[in-house]
Amino acid sequence: MTNSPTASMTETRYHVVGIGNAIVDVLAHADDQFINETGLTKGTMSLIDEETAESVYTKMGPGIECSGGSAANTIAGLASLGADGAFIGKVKDDQLGGVFRHDITSMGIAYNTAPDTDGASTARCMIHVTPDAQRTMQTYLGACVNLGPDDIDEHMISISQVTYLEGYLWDPEQAKKAFVKAAKAATDAGRLVSLSLSDPFCVDRHRDDFLNLVEGHVDVLFANEEEIMSLYQTESFDDALQAARAHCSIAALTRSEKGSVVLSGDEVHIVDAEPIDVVADTTGAGDAYAAGFLYGLTTGESLDTCARIGSICASEVISHVGARPDVSFKDLVRKKLG
Amino acid sequence: MTNSPTASMTETRYHVVGIGNAIVDVLAHADDQFINETGLTKGTMSLIDEETAESVYTKMGPGIECSGGSAANTIAGLASLGADGAFIGKVKDDQLGGVFRHDITSMGIAYNTAPDTDGASTARCMIHVTPDAQRTMQTYLGACVNLGPDDIDEHMISISQVTYLEGYLWDPEQAKKAFVKAAKAATDAGRLVSLSLSDPFCVDRHRDDFLNLVEGHVDVLFANEEEIMSLYQTESFDDALQAARAHCSIAALTRSEKGSVVLSGDEVHIVDAEPIDVVADTTGAGDAYAAGFLYGLTTGESLDTCARIGSICASEVISHVGARPDVSFKDLVRKKLG
Repeated sequence: MTNSPTASMTETRYHVVGIGNAIVDVLAHADDQFINETGLTKGTMSLIDEETAESVYTKMGPGIECSGGSAANTIAGLASLGADGAFIGKVKDDQLGGVFRHDITSMGIAYNTAPDTDGASTARCMIHVTPDAQRTMQTYLGACVNLGPDDIDEHMISISQVTYLEGYLWDPEQAKKAFVKAAKAATDAGRLVSLSLSDPFCVDRHRDDFLNLVEGHVDVLFANEEEIMSLYQTESFDDALQAARAHCSIAALTRSEKGSVVLSGDEVHIVDAEPIDVVADTTGAGDAYAAGFLYGLTTGESLDTCARIGSICASEVISHVGARPDVSFKDLVRKKLG
Repeated sequence: MTNSPTASMTETRYHVVGIGNAIVDVLAHADDQFINETGLTKGTMSLIDEETAESVYTKMGPGIECSGGSAANTIAGLASLGADGAFIGKVKDDQLGGVFRHDITSMGIAYNTAPDTDGASTARCMIHVTPDAQRTMQTYLGACVNLGPDDIDEHMISISQVTYLEGYLWDPEQAKKAFVKAAKAATDAGRLVSLSLSDPFCVDRHRDDFLNLVEGHVDVLFANEEEIMSLYQTESFDDALQAARAHCSIAALTRSEKGSVVLSGDEVHIVDAEPIDVVADTTGAGDAYAAGFLYGLTTGESLDTCARIGSICASEVISHVGARPDVSFKDLVRKKLG
């Protein structure tokens, strides 16, 4: 943070640098039967290989393509709020890689990660949106598996108030090393490290590592109800909350229509979800919440206001298909907060 | 039509076969200043080369990609209505070509046109959606210029009640020959030929050819107000209407929020537009209207009902970003017509 003695010695250029899987989403409507027959668990993300990706795509209805990726969505949200953002993540130099690069740079986000010139194609996430507006995701990581420590720009991290990392990075082996290098660089520069737990199954795959990270290396933790309960293997949200409270500097825990809970030392805030008419597609809700929260945090807002901004941003992306803002978050927040 | 003596001798497999440019749309929000500074005329389509396409794309904001193309949109609309459709159009076997093929075949539409394996990439249409919901298009035709007479499957045409051709086909040189071959095959098989005039500038580029087509070869003409006035070079819609009445077997003339006018011999119908709350993006309105109209026509509905179905379909696609149906046209029409 700019008020830390170390950070004050360094120029601050970015509010947040995000590091994550660089993915193009393919979104299509699906019914519950499709989810069941494909053996998927609604609301979660599973990893698939290229062959399965092709086969799943064949079975999907007509879709729309747009840039996605959890941390990338959050940085896009920050840009829409008027913040300065940067992103690190790996694409191939193919058509979808070009789409990802275009979308992120056209929002004014710094994005310098060198693309792969051969090997696996740009990552795709098949998103099945059911009539209840839930999204169930199948991700082919493609070029993302080639993100490694060499892609981490330590200078970029040192000039960013927050380094934001998605838990999904723990899936590709090299990205895990990149994650650790980035977190260390941020801490060494006196900056904040923020982690999103991403998905309950992802937490399940990497629980010990995540517990270790949250205990000693993460300043701001984002998780939803299922993820925090999975992390601490509790039966109730309240039990998970007590555990998080003991271990995290700041934890922002989201609960869909029940709103969010923010914990920091003695502070506890319970903030309502922003009401909306119709929920169309929940893809990107958590990413947008994190964008709003981090915007508040890096512009000096109180924690309850951070949560409120997060809720407003989340309400926008769930009102339409696709994970990124369809209107300016900045205008929306100005209108809602007054 | 199935009631013509020639056609009754042939099996009927498809309600409509569409022939058109096979295009992936890139849609992004833009302001009026962008339209002016780029020297574009709002509401129209202009052709661009690949270099310009790259340069325009760089200047556009973050976008969504989805399958488009005028005739392809119409066939997608027919499929959404439950009709049997087929499509002929050229892509390259690249990523966007794969997207186009997936989207059209996943709707149950027959699509057998061989893709190009080298040369220009799959066509893209950059669509700038302004706050007034108007769309202004810039098209890089890419692989579409390689659609030629050899791609016309005369058997497919002979087993389709209607062969639907977009005026835009008159832009690539080889496609023009494909168009003529297809129209002849349809007429020879005792089937109907339908033409959409596509765009007032497109009419301007090819007026003499279009006048000749409408006079002698087209059974069902679709045009909006600007296009029909451009075709007959009239100052008023009423003058254009009188000219169309003298030359077309069936003409369906669309007038945005003023509804549509259908002419056929002594018959004249003036049908209101379907009211909707908010117009988000007019991309594909005419294509969806043609889908609804042709669905009515090929299932034995009266001309006024054809127009009504067209209006209902158009109202759906203008209520969201993108040219293709977001919900089932069939369900929507059933609900609205009762």
